[in-house]
Amino acid sequence: MKLNENYFRLKDSYLFSEIAQRVREYSAANPNAKIIRLGIGDVTRPLAPCVVDAMKSAAVEMGDSSSFRGYGPEQGYDFLRGAIARYYAEKNVALADDEIFISDGAKSDLGNILDLFDSDNTVLVPDPVYPVYVDTNIMAGRRVIFADANEANGFLPMPDNNIDCDIVYICSPNNPTGAVYTKKQLKEWVTYAINKGAVILFDAAYEAFIHEDDCAGEDGLARSIYEIEGAGECAIEFCSFSKTAGFTGTRCGYTAVPHALKIGGRELNKLWLRRQTTKFNGVPYIVQRGAQAVFTPEGREQIAASIDYYRANAKTIMAELDNMGITYTGGKNSPYVWLRCPGGMKSWEFFDLLLKEANVVGTPGIGFGRNGEGYFRLTSFGNAAQTALACERIRNIGKSGI
Amino acid sequence: MKLNENYFRLKDSYLFSEIAQRVREYSAANPNAKIIRLGIGDVTRPLAPCVVDAMKSAAVEMGDSSSFRGYGPEQGYDFLRGAIARYYAEKNVALADDEIFISDGAKSDLGNILDLFDSDNTVLVPDPVYPVYVDTNIMAGRRVIFADANEANGFLPMPDNNIDCDIVYICSPNNPTGAVYTKKQLKEWVTYAINKGAVILFDAAYEAFIHEDDCAGEDGLARSIYEIEGAGECAIEFCSFSKTAGFTGTRCGYTAVPHALKIGGRELNKLWLRRQTTKFNGVPYIVQRGAQAVFTPEGREQIAASIDYYRANAKTIMAELDNMGITYTGGKNSPYVWLRCPGGMKSWEFFDLLLKEANVVGTPGIGFGRNGEGYFRLTSFGNAAQTALACERIRNIGKSGI
Repeated sequence: MKLNENYFRLKDSYLFSEIAQRVREYSAANPNAKIIRLGIGDVTRPLAPCVVDAMKSAAVEMGDSSSFRGYGPEQGYDFLRGAIARYYAEKNVALADDEIFISDGAKSDLGNILDLFDSDNTVLVPDPVYPVYVDTNIMAGRRVIFADANEANGFLPMPDNNIDCDIVYICSPNNPTGAVYTKKQLKEWVTYAINKGAVILFDAAYEAFIHEDDCAGEDGLARSIYEIEGAGECAIEFCSFSKTAGFTGTRCGYTAVPHALKIGGRELNKLWLRRQTTKFNGVPYIVQRGAQAVFTPEGREQIAASIDYYRANAKTIMAELDNMGITYTGGKNSPYVWLRCPGGMKSWEFFDLLLKEANVVGTPGIGFGRNGEGYFRLTSFGNAAQTALACERIRNIGKSGI
Repeated sequence: MKLNENYFRLKDSYLFSEIAQRVREYSAANPNAKIIRLGIGDVTRPLAPCVVDAMKSAAVEMGDSSSFRGYGPEQGYDFLRGAIARYYAEKNVALADDEIFISDGAKSDLGNILDLFDSDNTVLVPDPVYPVYVDTNIMAGRRVIFADANEANGFLPMPDNNIDCDIVYICSPNNPTGAVYTKKQLKEWVTYAINKGAVILFDAAYEAFIHEDDCAGEDGLARSIYEIEGAGECAIEFCSFSKTAGFTGTRCGYTAVPHALKIGGRELNKLWLRRQTTKFNGVPYIVQRGAQAVFTPEGREQIAASIDYYRANAKTIMAELDNMGITYTGGKNSPYVWLRCPGGMKSWEFFDLLLKEANVVGTPGIGFGRNGEGYFRLTSFGNAAQTALACERIRNIGKSGI
């Protein structure tokens, strides 16, 4: 028996355990400190009432032999695939229902999609980055190279024709930097991918945070890679109800694999269907009914209210940073605010300062890659009053001169 | 970009589409025929009331900000892992909570576990077999060899020390044959695996169909591979709420990876945890609450009633086959009845005969592998009245001499 030795090439991620450890130590020494966490990427708003109702009804249906549902289609129920196709149509993206696959979340599919590709491929990943892109490829033994995201390029690296690769990850709005590509910029990536015969894996998990006003024209932001001509021939898009509708604990997302996407004449849509029917058995019926409710008129309204709540938090954070003269990206079209640590501090230095002086916990940028050193991520997913209080405390340490 | 060429070595499975096609053609030509399906492996009884209640309550919790839950532990909530550990304890199997991983079903984990193993391993699979064991290994480019299951060995192949392999699949109670290993027999497999340094992947999805009365002593049946001494050092067990509690459309299962299971000194439990935290985000909170309810006293009672319903169907089928003098395995401790086609018919011949003469649909054994030729699978998951009616019709064609 030979193990998959690639697993032993993975670096252990100490980021979140190190954060937890430092917070634990500080709390033990300062039991009265009221710590506010602005570091987590998890949502805090409850599920929308229409989602709860839909899931309750579906549970009742499942308890009645006349409406009970057993195995569903592995790729998801038509009622949900259709609702998602119509949502794409609003963004002027035409996807057929059978180009949409319902998943148990973007994270699962971002890893599972790699099954379709040989391990002898080169993967281009931005740095800083969501660690899962790198780890899932290391597990399969693929070469991973990095595209530098930094202040010079607005944390939006552009393609370099001198660099060859086979798989390109793009996350826009980006986690952790909050930076968002324009259509014009994505057009360059699509052209690059087509020229190189590469596949773009486009993570659109935060697309709902983009303001429609910022989308107009070529220089406007893209909410889907498929808004770009040619993307259907080179890109797979991953999206999720996690951050939009608070499904982080309810687990539902979707993956688009257009029929036009072919490698050596082979449709990836067919391969993905084969993968899913063989290794997956679909998302719970109850959850799919909950997800469907997100697209009803009440659902749209309730979801928008929740996103507005987070946006208001982001505004609170941004206003504070503006006042303090701290440079940042994100916040406007993203739940993440990515700031340059003041006074040239390193990521962990600033972490310790915030923890000790403001009792606020954020995420050190270095945890997302080499280019994250000296940066720091705050999130808008917290409670509004707590977020405002955290900002006030940060302001106060600012006054004492950070 | 190189695709995973192993995908093109997969055989398309035409079994269920061929069945559907023949039924469609027959129905078109005979629009008044009332066809009864005893071919599906899907359940038909609704979810137990306590499961529905638990899921409704959990949905309400998720709709309230004070009780909302975001990301849960990837490996499952402690309340469910603990309940499963206590269920194992009843079978005299000691598993720690952190040796149990909650999954979205046995099918997913049976495929995903292979991530931990090199593609340069040899896999031993019984024939006939659940097709997913073979396909998931072909997708990774592993060598697959077969252990013949046939009437001579009661469809329970035993290990052959002359054959080397690294991964062994055992499904007991078996799909499709319904045959169940005794503890003594499994002891031989455990000894073989330890000698060869192989890992057993034990699919226990149908364990709840085993009668406790048949479990006593060494010659009694095993409901878990861990009832066998030494199994903790060589076996991973997969189980599911699908057939026990009707979760085929609700999606929940569990996988046990004991700490004692090591390859080259490496704990597979740690590797699996790394895989799951990287490529999976856990099972919906609502579903885990539903699964937990299965283990409450009311849950146990309601689930038992549902299994008894299916067992009664199996009895109906077995009584008919006994009357007709048709040889079969399964039925008693399994939802599947695997019969030898009467009169030396081939699987598809018998399929056509049943469809045309009795308007009953079953599954041709040849669809599960070479050794399935001449055999046929009926399932007990249907409606009781329909199952009885199907048996009556089969009896009638028996009278006209099959």
